[in-house]
Amino acid sequence: MRARVTIMPKTGVLDPQGKAIGHALGSLGFAGVGEVRAGKVIELELSEADPAKARAVAEEMARRLLANTVIESFKVELA
Amino acid sequence: MRARVTIMPKTGVLDPQGKAIGHALGSLGFAGVGEVRAGKVIELELSEADPAKARAVAEEMARRLLANTVIESFKVELA
Repeated sequence: MRARVTIMPKTGVLDPQGKAIGHALGSLGFAGVGEVRAGKVIELELSEADPAKARAVAEEMARRLLANTVIESFKVELA
Repeated sequence: MRARVTIMPKTGVLDPQGKAIGHALGSLGFAGVGEVRAGKVIELELSEADPAKARAVAEEMARRLLANTVIESFKVELA
C-alpha cells in the first residue's frame, strides 16, 4: 500500500523558503502571487495491506521522524 | 485561487533523500517499508480567479522556477 505524507509549516510559523520562492516569482515577472508556503511530500511503499493500519503506521512515522510537529503539520493520504 | 504544485523526482532518478528516510525508518524499527521518495510541495495564493488560467500560470511557474524538469516531474492541483 502506498502512503503519501504531506508536511507543511504550521500557520503562523515563518516560512523563509516560501518567502524566497514568492520573491523569485516576482523577479521572473509573475504578478498576483500572494502567500507562498513550501513543504515536503514523502511517498512510502508499505507492505501493510490494511488501510487503517497503514494509515496508523504512516502517522507514527510522521510523528517520530518525518515531521517536526512543533512547527510542522502533516497529512497522510493512502493510494 | 490557491494552487498546489507537487514536485517529485522522476522515476528512475536516484533519490538519496528518500533512501536516507527509508534507512532511518528501518533504524527506528519500522518494518515493511519499501521504496521511499521525497519531494516538495509548494502552495501558492494566486490572484487569478479563472481555474484554467490559474492552472496555466502555476504550470509555467513550475517549469520556469519551481521544478527542475530534467530530473523532476510536477503536478498542479487547484483548491
